[in-house]
Amino acid sequence: MGGAEIALVRHPNIRFVIFGNEAALHPYLEKYPRVASASEVVHTDVAVSMDDKPSQALRRGRKVSSMWRAIDAVKEGKAQAAVSAGNTGALMAMAKVILRTIPNVERPALAAIWPTARGESVALDLGATVGADAGQLVQFAIMGEAFARVIFNLDRPTVGLLNIGEEEVKGTEEVKAAAQMLRDNGLSMRFHGFVEGDDIAKGTVDVVVTDGYTGNIALKTAEGTARLIVGYLREAMASSLLSKIGYLLARGAFKTLQTKLDPRASNGAVFLGLNGLVVKSHGGTDDVGFASAIDVAVEVASADLVAKIATDVEKAKGLTVPAGKEETQQRESEAVLS
Amino acid sequence: MGGAEIALVRHPNIRFVIFGNEAALHPYLEKYPRVASASEVVHTDVAVSMDDKPSQALRRGRKVSSMWRAIDAVKEGKAQAAVSAGNTGALMAMAKVILRTIPNVERPALAAIWPTARGESVALDLGATVGADAGQLVQFAIMGEAFARVIFNLDRPTVGLLNIGEEEVKGTEEVKAAAQMLRDNGLSMRFHGFVEGDDIAKGTVDVVVTDGYTGNIALKTAEGTARLIVGYLREAMASSLLSKIGYLLARGAFKTLQTKLDPRASNGAVFLGLNGLVVKSHGGTDDVGFASAIDVAVEVASADLVAKIATDVEKAKGLTVPAGKEETQQRESEAVLS
Repeated sequence: MGGAEIALVRHPNIRFVIFGNEAALHPYLEKYPRVASASEVVHTDVAVSMDDKPSQALRRGRKVSSMWRAIDAVKEGKAQAAVSAGNTGALMAMAKVILRTIPNVERPALAAIWPTARGESVALDLGATVGADAGQLVQFAIMGEAFARVIFNLDRPTVGLLNIGEEEVKGTEEVKAAAQMLRDNGLSMRFHGFVEGDDIAKGTVDVVVTDGYTGNIALKTAEGTARLIVGYLREAMASSLLSKIGYLLARGAFKTLQTKLDPRASNGAVFLGLNGLVVKSHGGTDDVGFASAIDVAVEVASADLVAKIATDVEKAKGLTVPAGKEETQQRESEAVLS
Repeated sequence: MGGAEIALVRHPNIRFVIFGNEAALHPYLEKYPRVASASEVVHTDVAVSMDDKPSQALRRGRKVSSMWRAIDAVKEGKAQAAVSAGNTGALMAMAKVILRTIPNVERPALAAIWPTARGESVALDLGATVGADAGQLVQFAIMGEAFARVIFNLDRPTVGLLNIGEEEVKGTEEVKAAAQMLRDNGLSMRFHGFVEGDDIAKGTVDVVVTDGYTGNIALKTAEGTARLIVGYLREAMASSLLSKIGYLLARGAFKTLQTKLDPRASNGAVFLGLNGLVVKSHGGTDDVGFASAIDVAVEVASADLVAKIATDVEKAKGLTVPAGKEETQQRESEAVLS
């Protein structure tokens, strides 16, 4: 609720509907009177637990859980977006059941902001579903582009497809076919072509598109790498008296570094492709992080992202895979480490 | 050739057969007399270029290029391993044509050493082929385990399958079936189960197994993230006079950090699964990095890795996918960001 307080400072006009156990919420509402006066509290008895499988959550939490009711409020137009730091799988499953996908969107995707050398990019799908065919990747591209327009305030963001090389012959059949569709079918999108894993952090494109399996592994690999390096750095700075003094003198610089690496700043992943907005906050975040997730919700809701995506996918629905362009030859010998 | 000089200091008994243009090699042999006296130079007119597609390289370079002849020397038993910093795709294609895969191995895999919080792990496939079915993933696991035994001098390295969650129901069909095979079929391998992207840098297991598409993207994402953070750090340390002084005082610590992050130390990826050893050095590396690749070649060759892999895959060839265990239900709703 501290997160809501921070968000209220930045966006004084937002109103909250808070779903949860009233008794448990009470002390927080006392602590944050400003949030209390901007909120309506709806008591719920059932909470989805972090260990519930999506199927269990749907069974147990249907209609009665705080998670279900928060998403349902979006469907009913009582809220413009739902924000949750709860069980991701359950949130996704409920969001799909309650909000359903936008016409012409087959699967929703989880999109988030990724810090880069040039600022920030959007990456999706970060794990909403496993695998994606060419048509679904194209839909992800369209949805990610709309998200980037809104969140970065860009007219025409650049879009890249994550692959293991920049050449046309490389990659999975799905990725190659999606690239053909994005290249040949006269979308107004600025399609850059293929990008590789290291292009994400470089910020080569504004939107990086991939399937949920690869995207989730890339995201977690990046998080793991960042933690490893920060660990190395911490160890090195504590290794001698001189380095400790150096650290103290350069404290300001380390503070800047810490801010840049702060995962809280880019907290808030959005489920794109549904008839309503659902934002997932990291479960382990604090008030500052949760406020970021609320920020994201406010931005996408005020820009009416759902309507933008609906228009864009409607326009693109005639896209088909160009026939006879598959290149399977040489697939196996196209190694890529360089 | 400076790399060979460094390698010779560490392994005084190695001998080189150097394939290339004699005139171009001459000045280097003069500069490094020690390498010259440990080497036989075989003149070749044709060199595979970095831009050649594998198919072109095979056409143009067949029997005559330095790359072909270096690999052929391994086949003929004149060399125990081939080391190249050249075109990866071409090297892979030629290695497959010349050396062929070991019986019971369907596809070779590119394995490399990955720095972790616990030291080092092996990861494969990093991009030799695109995609892999369950049986091929199992073969990668067996080959990677043999590589880890040799390179880390471990009796029983732990092996994990890269996935988007640790639960059994998550992931692609291929990964789930491979996990079943590794769990149920009485291999002597210490199979840990699934690991996620952040487990690679944590060093949760000694061997991380994945398909070449995902592995390559994970590797490059990690490289990109490391460069991004080092860039942030450099910027931060240069941002004020105090931070510059701090940097000078803590120079030793930064030096340690640099050593830990030095990609040259883990240079040298091995093509596993062929009847002979081929080591790929990064194209952009220097003498120190190339020496690391030679080190890897010396280690795997002296341990007779090819024979070890042949024995292990022979033992495992009865493995089959347990029938009727596929779980497709819930696939789409199993989101994983947490």
